[in-house]
Amino acid sequence: MTQPDDQRWMALALSLGRRGLGQTWPNPAVGCVIVKDGRVLSRGWTQAGGRPHAEQVALSQLAPNAANGATAYVTLEPCAHTGQTPPCASALIEAGLARVVVATGDPDARVSGRGLAMLREAGLEVTTGVLEDEARRDQQGFLLRVTEGRPLVTLKLASSFDGRIATAAGESQWITGPQSRLQVQALRANHDAVMVGGRTAREDLPSLTLRGMGARRQPVRIVISAGLNLPTLGPLAEDTSGAPVWLIHGANAPQKARDFWADRGATLIEVAQDPSGLDMTAALRALGQAGLTRVLCEGGGSLAASLLKAQLVDQIVGFTAGVILGSDGLPSLGPLDAPKLSDAPRFALTETRRVGADVMHVWHRADK
Amino acid sequence: MTQPDDQRWMALALSLGRRGLGQTWPNPAVGCVIVKDGRVLSRGWTQAGGRPHAEQVALSQLAPNAANGATAYVTLEPCAHTGQTPPCASALIEAGLARVVVATGDPDARVSGRGLAMLREAGLEVTTGVLEDEARRDQQGFLLRVTEGRPLVTLKLASSFDGRIATAAGESQWITGPQSRLQVQALRANHDAVMVGGRTAREDLPSLTLRGMGARRQPVRIVISAGLNLPTLGPLAEDTSGAPVWLIHGANAPQKARDFWADRGATLIEVAQDPSGLDMTAALRALGQAGLTRVLCEGGGSLAASLLKAQLVDQIVGFTAGVILGSDGLPSLGPLDAPKLSDAPRFALTETRRVGADVMHVWHRADK
Repeated sequence: MTQPDDQRWMALALSLGRRGLGQTWPNPAVGCVIVKDGRVLSRGWTQAGGRPHAEQVALSQLAPNAANGATAYVTLEPCAHTGQTPPCASALIEAGLARVVVATGDPDARVSGRGLAMLREAGLEVTTGVLEDEARRDQQGFLLRVTEGRPLVTLKLASSFDGRIATAAGESQWITGPQSRLQVQALRANHDAVMVGGRTAREDLPSLTLRGMGARRQPVRIVISAGLNLPTLGPLAEDTSGAPVWLIHGANAPQKARDFWADRGATLIEVAQDPSGLDMTAALRALGQAGLTRVLCEGGGSLAASLLKAQLVDQIVGFTAGVILGSDGLPSLGPLDAPKLSDAPRFALTETRRVGADVMHVWHRADK
Repeated sequence: MTQPDDQRWMALALSLGRRGLGQTWPNPAVGCVIVKDGRVLSRGWTQAGGRPHAEQVALSQLAPNAANGATAYVTLEPCAHTGQTPPCASALIEAGLARVVVATGDPDARVSGRGLAMLREAGLEVTTGVLEDEARRDQQGFLLRVTEGRPLVTLKLASSFDGRIATAAGESQWITGPQSRLQVQALRANHDAVMVGGRTAREDLPSLTLRGMGARRQPVRIVISAGLNLPTLGPLAEDTSGAPVWLIHGANAPQKARDFWADRGATLIEVAQDPSGLDMTAALRALGQAGLTRVLCEGGGSLAASLLKAQLVDQIVGFTAGVILGSDGLPSLGPLDAPKLSDAPRFALTETRRVGADVMHVWHRADK
């Protein structure tokens, strides 16, 4: 049974959990608050790399017996299997908690329902479904990886008022303003990986690293390039930020290019290819297999269109500037093969607000 | 000297004045509040057709001598010339007002400074510049007509997330939702005229009338078509809404087409033409000459691009839907002849908000 303050404490646990987004893959970013007599005893969230888990962080701050009779608010069902550490469900039982409130169940077959069952068998009161929708939104990357075998895909599109990302002459810096670019850094920080197409890698020579966000795990840098036709000079080949480079290519990628990138420590992932390009569903499944839960696609237009056509985009973050480039400018998206309006990809508005001189608008898949 | 509540009463007068936008051309839409001892005695705004003026409306509601010693808040300098009615400055003096607070001066040479001088000479205390920026924004159409001889131009662009207004097959109904379309009706209501290009008139057969907004003056319907190549069936030729039709064409428009439209009561306006099209600066000057102060351009993409290239767009109202059409869709704007990024038209964000399922974003010229 829910109690009056359950939502309030769960909202706190969710906000703690969100701190770990982008940091914890392949594990979920969970938050935990331990409360007794209306007071917070301790707080925890999954640490960078995915361990220790949120519950263990919160419990580790307490004196022996301090949690006796307390309630734990956890944003995801506590784990029930012994991995590198003993299961969190056991730890909560041993700490003497009287009640555990959970936002949403873990679909992972090793946990699903078992964590809750362990707690109930040990005599703890268990409440589920508190702020479940919010929790499922926060955990969407982790949930998609478990249920569909692929990470969440966020598409970032920063364009002129009329949806252009460069002038006819190719000039693209800067269309949106510095505050929007800072927001993009924040997006990189809460995703496990940043992904671009080969043309963007060749033309913009992006570093794709996280800058100015403090000490965070660097996102994996993914480039999709069927033929591994990528610049051998520039930040992807040369930087020493420690951010991993993963290259997704087709069967025909030349051995010389494979060797070049392997020598530089890149991870090479080969996926199937047909005349229209690499199989993006297979590419994302490979990324899910490798542990990624949240991938930020930063373009270009043809990669974004491939993802949209394959129905692989879960949310879009748009930045619209007040500059107008006209139809001679480069469009933000490639062709989608003339869908009927009723078949076109559709997204529902989550939020719109001013960011510096630009409009930021966030959308999520309308069918989710 | 300003007094503590001046801004509060002027804000009320401005909100009254805005009720007349789109209704009062060629006159400005002014608001007036008469206040005594901290109480509103009466309120007025310029009536449809531009008369009576706001001050006269407010004064007409008062018993004799009721305004003795009161303060009038007026959003634009009271008129000083005798036109169809005696000047408002005289009316305020005769009513016994002690003080007149004015938001902004009237640049019209027949008024400029003279209304204020009349009031001062009669011994009234005059305060100016209260909420002047807001007043100048509201009055921008009237001010542009006086200072530059042309109306304010608002460009409305409703598009898909990626800036497209139709699929490759031409399907365009509906990209944005019903709430956005209602907002467009509200925009039509506060503009003097609605303007489209010939292609839009041919392909969409728009009625361009105001619907569902109560009894309002219908905006003038303007079509820009160099050759008067316009559909002779459909709402522009046949409807009986009473909304005037003005057609802007070039010297080569066939006599037969001119006769057809003249027979149907349309006003024909010929403007200069060069190989790139009609001279839009001349077109807008003709519209200003005819009395228009606020024109809403609803497309299509090539008319919008012509206006932008000629630097004739003062504000843009964008509606962005969550549907994605890809680069095979029809762009919302034609080519702007590849400007450098630093030369591209630039607008500053006024406001962004959710309208139904869409984002509405309003921008104004960055250099104004």
